[in-house]
Amino acid sequence: MSLKEMTDLMLPAIEAELRKQVTRIDESHTKTLHDMLAYHLGWSGDGSGKEARGKRIRPLLVLLTSAACGADWKIALPAAAAVELVHNFSLVHDDIQDNSSKRRGRDTVWVKWGIPQGINAGDSLFVLSNLAILDLVSGLPPEMVVAAAKILHDTCLDLTRGQFLDMSYEERNDLTVEDYWLMVSYKTAALLASCCALGAIISRVDVSTQESYRDFGHYLGLAFQVQDDYLGIWGKWLQTGKSAEADLISKKKSLPVLFGLGKKGQFAQRWDKGPIDPEDVVWLADQLAAEGGRLYTQETADQMTDMALAALRTAEPKGDAGDALFELANKLLMRAA
Amino acid sequence: MSLKEMTDLMLPAIEAELRKQVTRIDESHTKTLHDMLAYHLGWSGDGSGKEARGKRIRPLLVLLTSAACGADWKIALPAAAAVELVHNFSLVHDDIQDNSSKRRGRDTVWVKWGIPQGINAGDSLFVLSNLAILDLVSGLPPEMVVAAAKILHDTCLDLTRGQFLDMSYEERNDLTVEDYWLMVSYKTAALLASCCALGAIISRVDVSTQESYRDFGHYLGLAFQVQDDYLGIWGKWLQTGKSAEADLISKKKSLPVLFGLGKKGQFAQRWDKGPIDPEDVVWLADQLAAEGGRLYTQETADQMTDMALAALRTAEPKGDAGDALFELANKLLMRAA
Repeated sequence: MSLKEMTDLMLPAIEAELRKQVTRIDESHTKTLHDMLAYHLGWSGDGSGKEARGKRIRPLLVLLTSAACGADWKIALPAAAAVELVHNFSLVHDDIQDNSSKRRGRDTVWVKWGIPQGINAGDSLFVLSNLAILDLVSGLPPEMVVAAAKILHDTCLDLTRGQFLDMSYEERNDLTVEDYWLMVSYKTAALLASCCALGAIISRVDVSTQESYRDFGHYLGLAFQVQDDYLGIWGKWLQTGKSAEADLISKKKSLPVLFGLGKKGQFAQRWDKGPIDPEDVVWLADQLAAEGGRLYTQETADQMTDMALAALRTAEPKGDAGDALFELANKLLMRAA
Repeated sequence: MSLKEMTDLMLPAIEAELRKQVTRIDESHTKTLHDMLAYHLGWSGDGSGKEARGKRIRPLLVLLTSAACGADWKIALPAAAAVELVHNFSLVHDDIQDNSSKRRGRDTVWVKWGIPQGINAGDSLFVLSNLAILDLVSGLPPEMVVAAAKILHDTCLDLTRGQFLDMSYEERNDLTVEDYWLMVSYKTAALLASCCALGAIISRVDVSTQESYRDFGHYLGLAFQVQDDYLGIWGKWLQTGKSAEADLISKKKSLPVLFGLGKKGQFAQRWDKGPIDPEDVVWLADQLAAEGGRLYTQETADQMTDMALAALRTAEPKGDAGDALFELANKLLMRAA
């Protein structure tokens, strides 16, 4: 089976498991709360559908990893739902914290129902993730359920650390590339690492294989973030549809920007002067490239991708699911498969 | 040992366990996040100390219940910390949702660090509660840890349901006393019920005894809320230091108010007219009393208290801890012990 065939098999199962988990809140007197979650998850309301749901990469990673370890991936479904619920909890709160009015082209939850209900909707998704992970008990012994829950909760702690750092960084002018790695390790890579670790531990592979899968997810997350930072400035040239303006105008302290600030050249001087207007963007992007920021970011994304693929090879994933993991990583990171 | 002697023994252990749990976040680069939690929990910052910490009623209920079931209460400490962390997570988010600038006389977390960091601080407390409950594994078999975690997470789902209803009720003019019971069952009683259920399940008493303890916590929570509603309007006369003005001015849809609205008399007519000024409060409180709202609320609090004490008697709590539970309930509900 190809990656496409595997995802065609797994995605409906993920969606069904997610719906089952979210049904816990579907009582007549809390119907509107359920509506908020169903809307955010792309199941209902204006603009619902495949596009609104995102790619469900995280649950796919859980299931593909468990299958590549030789287990029945259906046993891992509650963990797959749990990581997707955690991801969506963090998005709902993130949108409030960042004052973002749109997500995947649709109004965010807080825009539709207000900030107080938005906070509570995020909290509900978080609780549902905690309940989902315990549902592993139907297919696994309780000591493994406790171990899986520990992985999930440790990751959530990392997410709150990452979110704290991300928000703190907005006010800081002394950031280095090291600060960047710390923040994205917590905020982006931790959950992807956790997906692979969960898939592996559920399949009862040995500890060193679990570690290899965790490393795969970790570097995959870092590579993905660095690539996202690249596209946020030079995306136009790659024609990915991603606007190159947003990241510079919002003064996002992405990897290329921190590299450029460290150079203390013309890019840094202009950056320090204050707000960036749309007409400054092309000059700034060109200047940052001229100072080496573009090449550095590209090379860093390549490095992280190589490390992800090396970790995956070490894990020795089996069968079609193993091939699919390599294909997924290459696809996510835009390399030829 | 009296209740005082037992709490003198247990409170320092609760505080030590809470500090241990919160230390998970105490890394050098997330120090400010740790500061937020330590501030909210009353350990540091302006006005820190015993008053700022609250009474730690919920963890005490866990420990006293487990001791009254004949177990070593020290085994239950991670569960005691978990319920207190859940309670405080809900307070931090509640203060944002209600736009409350003060809690126990101190600035709230969001006032000090802003709403985005306040949301994240609440999320962190929530994650820490999830990790705390898993620490039961050091003293209990994993299947019991899973059962305890399930109780905790189910309760958190009830809390988000209760919070949803509480916020929804602000906009509704068709509420009845039944709506009130639904909301306070979720928002207040569920966590107290959970405390007693956790103490009991950890001590491995039979299911019907667990249920009796859960009922005790449930009715204790309802009695406590009804009493709080009473004091929010007629507190002056009881000289508890609680302002009788706040609840009427904020138009809180408390039990006596819903009773009064149901009567469709002069109280309801004035209520429907719009905002309530401080000079209207005495007349409104007197009118509500004249229409039977005061007696009804008092009798309801008495009923709930009787049901709580009856459930506790059915549970047959043992020894000094058992006596302490009766004393605690009577003290909370202001009856002579």
